[in-house]
Amino acid sequence: MDTHTKAGLLPIKEYQKNRARMLISCPDGPGIVAAVSHFLHQHGANIVQSDQYSMDPEGGMFFMRVEFDLENLNTRLQGIEADFQEIATTFKMEWNIFPLQKKKKIAILVSKEDHCLVELLWQWQAGDLDAEISMVISNHPDMKAYIESFGIPYHHIPVTPDTKKEAEAKQLELLDGKVDLIVLARYMQIVSPALIEPYRNRIINIHHSFLPAFVGGKPYAQAYDRGVKIIGATAHYVTEELDGGPIIEQDVQRVSHRDNVNELKRIGRTIERVVLARAVKWHIEDRLLVHHNKTVVFN
Amino acid sequence: MDTHTKAGLLPIKEYQKNRARMLISCPDGPGIVAAVSHFLHQHGANIVQSDQYSMDPEGGMFFMRVEFDLENLNTRLQGIEADFQEIATTFKMEWNIFPLQKKKKIAILVSKEDHCLVELLWQWQAGDLDAEISMVISNHPDMKAYIESFGIPYHHIPVTPDTKKEAEAKQLELLDGKVDLIVLARYMQIVSPALIEPYRNRIINIHHSFLPAFVGGKPYAQAYDRGVKIIGATAHYVTEELDGGPIIEQDVQRVSHRDNVNELKRIGRTIERVVLARAVKWHIEDRLLVHHNKTVVFN
Amino acid sequence: MDTHTKAGLLPIKEYQKNRARMLISCPDGPGIVAAVSHFLHQHGANIVQSDQYSMDPEGGMFFMRVEFDLENLNTRLQGIEADFQEIATTFKMEWNIFPLQKKKKIAILVSKEDHCLVELLWQWQAGDLDAEISMVISNHPDMKAYIESFGIPYHHIPVTPDTKKEAEAKQLELLDGKVDLIVLARYMQIVSPALIEPYRNRIINIHHSFLPAFVGGKPYAQAYDRGVKIIGATAHYVTEELDGGPIIEQDVQRVSHRDNVNELKRIGRTIERVVLARAVKWHIEDRLLVHHNKTVVFN
Amino acid sequence: MDTHTKAGLLPIKEYQKNRARMLISCPDGPGIVAAVSHFLHQHGANIVQSDQYSMDPEGGMFFMRVEFDLENLNTRLQGIEADFQEIATTFKMEWNIFPLQKKKKIAILVSKEDHCLVELLWQWQAGDLDAEISMVISNHPDMKAYIESFGIPYHHIPVTPDTKKEAEAKQLELLDGKVDLIVLARYMQIVSPALIEPYRNRIINIHHSFLPAFVGGKPYAQAYDRGVKIIGATAHYVTEELDGGPIIEQDVQRVSHRDNVNELKRIGRTIERVVLARAVKWHIEDRLLVHHNKTVVFN
Repeated sequence: MDTHTKAGLLPIKEYQKNRARMLISCPDGPGIVAAVSHFLHQHGANIVQSDQYSMDPEGGMFFMRVEFDLENLNTRLQGIEADFQEIATTFKMEWNIFPLQKKKKIAILVSKEDHCLVELLWQWQAGDLDAEISMVISNHPDMKAYIESFGIPYHHIPVTPDTKKEAEAKQLELLDGKVDLIVLARYMQIVSPALIEPYRNRIINIHHSFLPAFVGGKPYAQAYDRGVKIIGATAHYVTEELDGGPIIEQDVQRVSHRDNVNELKRIGRTIERVVLARAVKWHIEDRLLVHHNKTVVFN
Repeated sequence: MDTHTKAGLLPIKEYQKNRARMLISCPDGPGIVAAVSHFLHQHGANIVQSDQYSMDPEGGMFFMRVEFDLENLNTRLQGIEADFQEIATTFKMEWNIFPLQKKKKIAILVSKEDHCLVELLWQWQAGDLDAEISMVISNHPDMKAYIESFGIPYHHIPVTPDTKKEAEAKQLELLDGKVDLIVLARYMQIVSPALIEPYRNRIINIHHSFLPAFVGGKPYAQAYDRGVKIIGATAHYVTEELDGGPIIEQDVQRVSHRDNVNELKRIGRTIERVVLARAVKWHIEDRLLVHHNKTVVFN
Repeated sequence: MDTHTKAGLLPIKEYQKNRARMLISCPDGPGIVAAVSHFLHQHGANIVQSDQYSMDPEGGMFFMRVEFDLENLNTRLQGIEADFQEIATTFKMEWNIFPLQKKKKIAILVSKEDHCLVELLWQWQAGDLDAEISMVISNHPDMKAYIESFGIPYHHIPVTPDTKKEAEAKQLELLDGKVDLIVLARYMQIVSPALIEPYRNRIINIHHSFLPAFVGGKPYAQAYDRGVKIIGATAHYVTEELDGGPIIEQDVQRVSHRDNVNELKRIGRTIERVVLARAVKWHIEDRLLVHHNKTVVFN
Repeated sequence: MDTHTKAGLLPIKEYQKNRARMLISCPDGPGIVAAVSHFLHQHGANIVQSDQYSMDPEGGMFFMRVEFDLENLNTRLQGIEADFQEIATTFKMEWNIFPLQKKKKIAILVSKEDHCLVELLWQWQAGDLDAEISMVISNHPDMKAYIESFGIPYHHIPVTPDTKKEAEAKQLELLDGKVDLIVLARYMQIVSPALIEPYRNRIINIHHSFLPAFVGGKPYAQAYDRGVKIIGATAHYVTEELDGGPIIEQDVQRVSHRDNVNELKRIGRTIERVVLARAVKWHIEDRLLVHHNKTVVFN
């Protein structure tokens, strides 16, 4: 179990060296799948998995995820991307190719509650999150020693109403160009548009969810007073609308009148960490496409 | 399968003749369980199941459900109830004793969608809802023949903005003194305080539920646009606050971006009928106690 | 609600007239998706949904489901099928094209318990099972009047150890060439190879399932004695190995020590009817592919 | 987050000082609840929660869990226990009183896989497992440094076919009189009757569970080959029958044909750790009663 004292970065596996994933969004129309699969076949790629989804046959959007193997991917990727541009232009595609050997870099932002962070670290060490955790940023100093024991840089950036702007500038500087994904693992500060804009659809947040939703503070106390029978959590991409971004994953657990507010919170924590970890894993594995305020999840 | 053409009322089983259930709510304090169980023991009753719940040890509420057998229950019930009043007064109890041989009478109110009604009828015929369905009231005539084929009276009371008051008067007259429970099985009219007041905590409604909740019309379309991953349903007692009464039961099912609005509605219907039938069953079995806006469910 | 007295067969919707689904299984290899999608595109078809799955990139199997629209499908289908044979031969495909306007014909076999049958009828009437229920066959006469009230032929074929062979001959004669799918909706007779062989992967059965599995009779009593916390049901295609065929769908529900054997059976019935109906729906919608003893479910 | 470097033992909370839990099993009969609640009331105790369950009204077993507050519990406990013996004898009770301030001592046995152990440690540090982790025993040395960093003694006792008897003797010596509960957190050795006997109903094991169950080795590979749609885990008390003891808790998760064997194992690990942690928590909170091969769970 020495993984617990090492940095936990997984080595690139043999099969990953020549494998890539392609994500495509475009207006629907005839011939897209044929064009893409014909293109890949012509270039000698072997499709190992392919998913499509058409939001609405008549005038809707088309989404595609293709996982393929290609000999000498490394040296040929740039050429492939250049050649594909013609198809992309024809079909007005937004698209990306992600080679598996280029591990995504994650920054985790956290406040005092550590359950989501600990779960992500644990899954990362167990090899279940195939990414690099590049840094942890917190508005509290508490977890510094713990995080650094994994070999992960820990940046303590205090945030007060007075220093919020300055703090965000520091965050942006730390993050700039260094990470592919930002995970808000119970980061209890509202993130400003200056951070959201450059990381559009690349910031994942987790929050509790109830049926029905409760407006105002202390939602767990409200849920207890109302006697809800189910509590849940929602992982979503962060947009300018607070907790209103595209939903990635949700899950729930049954509770009863016997569960007091603390017990509800405890159960909520377990749902939160599991749901957030799933959402992060899917993002890392390029399973998520966003259109307007909605995700398509190829899992 | 002749049950499908008969009225489906279950005969009283042997063990039900001398069995009753007692429901108690009162301020918590020492000695309640001792007093109740001592009382029943003194009167020769045998407790076959007992549940208690204390909302908060310090100055909170206490809830109790006792199921007991008593020889010659029929002739002795009135005496028992009279004797118990002393204990009830001491502990400031709200209480009721329900003998099992007195089947609860249900009125089902329905509009055009029949899935919840059909599920209730089906469970009732299968012997899983041990009650009497006394009547169905609808603002549409469509299901008259179908319901009457079960031997159940069907009352068509049209409702328009102009005739709403009059229609409700007719409903109240039909119901008056004849039913123990009203089930709104997708009854798409708002029920007025004149109906709620005399049937406080005895009207059960079902409605769809989402994480997050969607304000405004067409919630399924909104849920689709937002790409929710879970949809649910909530059964609750009806209060003057629309869809805001004490929650009895909730359940959910996973959905994906592949489910269009119609598919979401279809899945929603299956959750609705299962959740409503569970709530009705628990009410019939005296498993529900209400305090403020919250239920205690002894199941 | 006149659907309850009519035969319930859904009319063909406009969009269904020119829509078809194609199911393909073949050894995996490069170029399959390209060939299929290129073929469809060349013939003027528009792919509205496409799913692929590769069991194992290296030397495994490839599965594909394509839903497409094609003008004048009716008159062109035969030609398309003839043309496709070349691709099919090249890639060693097993394949089928199912036009949506050709509704699948279902025979339901049932014994005394009616919960699964009633659920199928109910979903069929609600328009959620887009198929034709051609006949019900039972070894008991009980449900004759009920089934015939839907306009569905009911065949009572008694089965005794002595007449089993003869009974099966009668069943085969009734079914011969007239149905696409046989549903065993709690049919409590073992089906012989003579019936299985011609309907390979077209007979669906439902049975209860427990964690752990219980060997021998009275599994619900065993489950109660063991105090299981979860009970479930499994829908599967029927093979010569009893309850051992490819699994299509499973689901579970939590139970507790408070649920006695009858309560476990009641809960089991609800899971069974929901799981069986889902499996039947997926088969009807051509979402199921079988390889060896395993299903691929494109849902 | 200094909890991550400290031993994590929770201080005794104020309300715990005078609180205890009583567990009772006895043959059912009239007057038990009255006798127990009257006894507690007479001695000045205030019942804060009480659950009963009667396995079968006619000649079955009765189970009870009472949580109560009593001033000066510490000094009065012995007297209470002595006084209660009369009632216990009358009703042939097996019974125990557990004061909350006496934290249960746990030994965790583990082999190489660490997911269950890590979850228990994490919940323990978060304050969700209100117990003392007294030691970790492993047949591998790998986790020594990690465990000792929590201040928990780590005993490496290698087990080979030749040394199994000797190894168990060492384990028994280490455990003797020092622990209340043994948790097999993926301990891959069969535990012998010599260990089971003195810790009857105090050893909890976790193992994967499938619908259907798979006989023989490599169950995950078998589950993949069969295409199961649900995988699960079962926590149970250990008896002489391998994996056949009383079930405490079970849970499941949906999987699909897309999940390969490794993915099934990964998902299985998450279910295992959650289910085991729940079972351990319930044991610690005295929510479990065992009768024959079945648990009653008061939660």
